Amino acid sequence: MIENPFYGPETQGDFELYDLGNLILESGETLRSAKLAYRIFGQLNAARSNAVLVTTWFSGTGKVMEDVYVGRDHALDPDEYFIIVVDQIGSGVSSSPQNTPGPQSMGKFPKVRIGDDVRAQHKLVTEHFGIDRLALVVGGSMGGQQVYEWAVRYPVMVERAAPIAATARISHHQVIFVDACAEALMSDPAWNGGWYRNGHDVRDGMDRLARIVATLGWSPQFYQEERWRSVLGMSSRDDFINGVMKAYFEPMDPNVLLCEMWKWQRADVSCHAGGNLAAAMKRIRARTYVMPISHDMFFPPHECEADCALIEGAELKVIHTPEGHMGLNGFEPGYMQQVDEHLRALLGS
Amino acid sequence: MIENPFYGPETQGDFELYDLGNLILESGETLRSAKLAYRIFGQLNAARSNAVLVTTWFSGTGKVMEDVYVGRDHALDPDEYFIIVVDQIGSGVSSSPQNTPGPQSMGKFPKVRIGDDVRAQHKLVTEHFGIDRLALVVGGSMGGQQVYEWAVRYPVMVERAAPIAATARISHHQVIFVDACAEALMSDPAWNGGWYRNGHDVRDGMDRLARIVATLGWSPQFYQEERWRSVLGMSSRDDFINGVMKAYFEPMDPNVLLCEMWKWQRADVSCHAGGNLAAAMKRIRARTYVMPISHDMFFPPHECEADCALIEGAELKVIHTPEGHMGLNGFEPGYMQQVDEHLRALLGS
Repeated sequence: MIENPFYGPETQGDFELYDLGNLILESGETLRSAKLAYRIFGQLNAARSNAVLVTTWFSGTGKVMEDVYVGRDHALDPDEYFIIVVDQIGSGVSSSPQNTPGPQSMGKFPKVRIGDDVRAQHKLVTEHFGIDRLALVVGGSMGGQQVYEWAVRYPVMVERAAPIAATARISHHQVIFVDACAEALMSDPAWNGGWYRNGHDVRDGMDRLARIVATLGWSPQFYQEERWRSVLGMSSRDDFINGVMKAYFEPMDPNVLLCEMWKWQRADVSCHAGGNLAAAMKRIRARTYVMPISHDMFFPPHECEADCALIEGAELKVIHTPEGHMGLNGFEPGYMQQVDEHLRALLGS
Repeated sequence: MIENPFYGPETQGDFELYDLGNLILESGETLRSAKLAYRIFGQLNAARSNAVLVTTWFSGTGKVMEDVYVGRDHALDPDEYFIIVVDQIGSGVSSSPQNTPGPQSMGKFPKVRIGDDVRAQHKLVTEHFGIDRLALVVGGSMGGQQVYEWAVRYPVMVERAAPIAATARISHHQVIFVDACAEALMSDPAWNGGWYRNGHDVRDGMDRLARIVATLGWSPQFYQEERWRSVLGMSSRDDFINGVMKAYFEPMDPNVLLCEMWKWQRADVSCHAGGNLAAAMKRIRARTYVMPISHDMFFPPHECEADCALIEGAELKVIHTPEGHMGLNGFEPGYMQQVDEHLRALLGS
């Protein structure tokens, strides 16, 4: 275990830990004393009909979802909805390699799949909060992978679904890209099979990861227009790489990122229909807005559109922002305006 | 020096070496006893008006240009044209880190720029062949960077120019991507500052490079459609990564690739007009076809289109192929059909 303040309340703000007990994973392994980190906003109404579940993405935690997506000025308004923001397993805050003791710590943390997350979240929602219908499940990127898993696995429970910048089944392209990211970390001798003393020991690998993520995370247009100036306040390309990309990953834990990467690469709802994606998507009963980002190179709009076509009654709502996938962080005001507009329409329907 | 048969005639076929003597580089350093590898096809006509210069791309040599682009069934027909295919410096065949002796060998090979290549090629064309007008300069990717440099640096000499899948000035996006590629090699302890005994020692870094190149070299559509089956005859994603990407780089020399990468990142014709790209492009007198590849993620069509708009009378000819940048290798018959059609029209104009 490693005490990393980045994943504690001094950085992450207030959150609760829900004790899942022993979580039997899809791999067959059992994650002992598993914990889900969550934070809630607003009040559950008497009919228990206003609950919204918000999921997290790779390298992100509930904090960024709270800061960017939740608030009185957003569609996810605590005055109207009971909002549960839940950290995925391996986020660094929920049960994760660096905060799990004993034989499942660090390099021995078990492999976790999106399905494990969604079953754990289901337990939180139903057993802890006594909620049997979710007005909306929403999340971006890996969070969107969780949204798809929710809608396919628990179709009756999910009234509305909004997967942002995500696909229902990982693409070959993404698998290869994420392998490149993982290799950047694991090739650093300091990674040492996951048994470093401090995440900072793996700084060279983390720096390489930061650069590789930069190549697909932001769009060519972002770079062409040098939007690091206007959007991020950086002075140059190098200032952007150092001050945004490397600085972003620098406080994080390498095993946390590797745990999430392994999961990211295996997201695939078709497992609920013997590998038949179309059949799996037919299970969805949620009113669904499929929300790709216009310049996304992780989950290109045309791939999201193909998913949308497989869901009965789903609508494609492209969010236009030249930032590409990283636009998810809401750096640009126009991004959240579009997201809020679509989520308000979806929630009002 | 390393004896690597990949860069010798047993692999590269017949080529000649032109002795440049001591080439003073833009950096101020002198490359001693510099050599340019070239191969010629067809006959120079009496008017000396039918010469075509073909340049090479990153990791490629004159061999692939000969095999894919030159022949009686192509626009570059030796029955009509006197075709000079020239290896860039650092290709492994022309003067390069692994074949240069003494204090400029291996990790001490000097930094070379596109301008150095084009000046060296100019010497070959004018002094060795006595040619003062080129009917066409054509090349793809880094070869296209050389085409732009030719057209801007020697505007009177270049009658026609066809930069394929390239831009006149490197983008920030590409610089970051190529840094990620270089780091993949240099982070391998076996690279050892460029002083390995055998390129194969750096196999881990080369394998990482192969995967990173795969993430942008081929398009998401290529992966989505699993075109490695139909286009490349590979059985699976892993078979493709191992049998195409890793196998491609495996026989090459790491310092050769690093030499080319450094050069690739610095291509910028605006140096001929004090950093003003538009002013530099105004120097071009060649009839120019700007030929991006439709799904290219290295040099996206919209960036090539912006270059095209800066060249008087230039026409944009997008080559449609879902392969993306790697389509340059002509894996798909439709690719060369389009290239030939455009080059025939250009040469006929």
